Amino acid sequence: MGGDHGLSVTIPAAVSFLSASSGRRALLVGREPELSAALQAEGVSTEVRSRLEIIATDEVVLMDDPPAVALRNKRRSSMRLAIEAVKEGRAHAAVSAGNTGALMAIARYVLKTMEGIDRPAIATAMPNQKGGVTTMLDLGANVDCNADHLLQFASMGAALVSVMHGKQNPTVGLLNIGEEVIKGNDTVKLAGELLRASHLNFFGNVEGDDIFKGTTDVVVCDGFVGNVALKTAEGLAQMLRSFIKQEFTRSGISKLLGLIAMPVLKRFSQRVDHRRYNGAALLGLRGIVFKSHGSADTLAFGHALGRAADAAAYGLNEKIAQAIALDRPESIPHPDLKSQSTEASEDLA
Amino acid sequence: MGGDHGLSVTIPAAVSFLSASSGRRALLVGREPELSAALQAEGVSTEVRSRLEIIATDEVVLMDDPPAVALRNKRRSSMRLAIEAVKEGRAHAAVSAGNTGALMAIARYVLKTMEGIDRPAIATAMPNQKGGVTTMLDLGANVDCNADHLLQFASMGAALVSVMHGKQNPTVGLLNIGEEVIKGNDTVKLAGELLRASHLNFFGNVEGDDIFKGTTDVVVCDGFVGNVALKTAEGLAQMLRSFIKQEFTRSGISKLLGLIAMPVLKRFSQRVDHRRYNGAALLGLRGIVFKSHGSADTLAFGHALGRAADAAAYGLNEKIAQAIALDRPESIPHPDLKSQSTEASEDLA
Repeated sequence: MGGDHGLSVTIPAAVSFLSASSGRRALLVGREPELSAALQAEGVSTEVRSRLEIIATDEVVLMDDPPAVALRNKRRSSMRLAIEAVKEGRAHAAVSAGNTGALMAIARYVLKTMEGIDRPAIATAMPNQKGGVTTMLDLGANVDCNADHLLQFASMGAALVSVMHGKQNPTVGLLNIGEEVIKGNDTVKLAGELLRASHLNFFGNVEGDDIFKGTTDVVVCDGFVGNVALKTAEGLAQMLRSFIKQEFTRSGISKLLGLIAMPVLKRFSQRVDHRRYNGAALLGLRGIVFKSHGSADTLAFGHALGRAADAAAYGLNEKIAQAIALDRPESIPHPDLKSQSTEASEDLA
Repeated sequence: MGGDHGLSVTIPAAVSFLSASSGRRALLVGREPELSAALQAEGVSTEVRSRLEIIATDEVVLMDDPPAVALRNKRRSSMRLAIEAVKEGRAHAAVSAGNTGALMAIARYVLKTMEGIDRPAIATAMPNQKGGVTTMLDLGANVDCNADHLLQFASMGAALVSVMHGKQNPTVGLLNIGEEVIKGNDTVKLAGELLRASHLNFFGNVEGDDIFKGTTDVVVCDGFVGNVALKTAEGLAQMLRSFIKQEFTRSGISKLLGLIAMPVLKRFSQRVDHRRYNGAALLGLRGIVFKSHGSADTLAFGHALGRAADAAAYGLNEKIAQAIALDRPESIPHPDLKSQSTEASEDLA
């Protein structure tokens, strides 16, 4: 029921998802009359319809519901029932384009976190200059993180990459700042030490530009920084799109040049089409949940569905459990960096 | 002496800067033989040469010198002498393309911070979708900030915008994260309260994409977040440039289309040319210091020189002193937000 476009996007995407492979099934959770009407409008074949089941409920989480309200007062929401279907083993994964905060709160409450995970995280893939993707987390689930949390994010991110992109031993970078006065805060410094001592393929510190350079497969940061970085990139991409459009429509000649250059511009925009990267993973839960961008269209929502199905089919959570077991906090020495860094700051005082 | 290109950029830029206005003078600080040779190669007129003075020293700060080393062991570095010229009133401003950390450390040590400023900050302007610029700070001088620091950054940023862009009462946004589980950490929440109670034209929270949307004139954040946001944007811009170039050189036809569309592409890239925005201000010091990007070319370094000269001419530091005096910490009530936010987190637990 969620997202900016509701059923006009989610239903066609679900039908395409089922049509693409006869082994797939889908549970549609929401207002029954609206779901049935949307399916009818879509003209679904009997065969595909037989792999669709409706879980009816009248309650929905609104985009502006505070997470606590969604969790406490809407116990029969479509979001809640979808996640409960995962918990009960009726579904392998849940996908929503709705309220991110509510989705995380409900998923965490219903599914609980995996053993060895203190906090779930949100991860997404972004295109990089090497023609591959960089997986980044956390993107907003956790605004205050300690070094152990960052290590757990790294393990989960590496597991996600190895499962989704078939990469063994993916490289992990720790998002930090570069040449400036003091390199990183105490949390990031300690996280670096933990990552170095872990089983992960730790590359070292990376900076913001490394996300798009593709320096590492995984980039780890706290949710505040990750969210700002992601939204900053979205804002810049949006500005550049609008500038290109303005320049190519400024005059009759510009328009003509735009038309002529269209095939190239189109290939360019396909290459960086954010819809292809839609579907953020909520990692560290005892069940698979993916979040689609609220503004997703049918193509984009279909990518989120496919990603969630792949994660379930390729054993994402088993892989995460293995990774976490290798690097339990008690098995990694925690150096006392606080004293060192205080010294360094005094140097500059 | 600093930057990726050294004197081959800084000398021609300084000469252009002087040629543009007969009221300007420049002190060139560095290795005398190299400076003289570069000036000779540039073919400077007697008139311009008469407005140039060389401060000779053999010592230079290297790009990879730790700030503490630059500060303690290089007391006759060109960077140090340039900043001492500001302190002694021989120069109105210092501009460097060298090591940012060393520049900040030396500037802070030599000039000291202004009254009411706990920590200097680094601010830069970025183009926005409205065709104006968004001024953002801090960009890496301070990795751990409290709410009072963020308020001071806001005052300094607003003063910078009003002086450099002639905007009275510029709007200030506090960089935060949006719809996700918990909106911002305690520091950002408290900073929001302080900003609301201040004399500033506080817009409220903004997100990463608002930087390029131009939602507010000033965007305030801690140095870690600001540095990551800035570098992420640089990385994305770099990737898109390389993709556009690749697409327009993929085949003979693509190349032809690229040539045809060239005027439009050129206008587009001029519009977002980062060189036009070169010159970050080190704010909150008892003297004006600007930092040029290390990779700056002559055009870009010239912009940094012009910006520093404008800041001095239009009374940047007087404006900052006025703004800070209006919003001293003791004159703004500090609400105890800690207890509120703990409650909110418990709601979700």
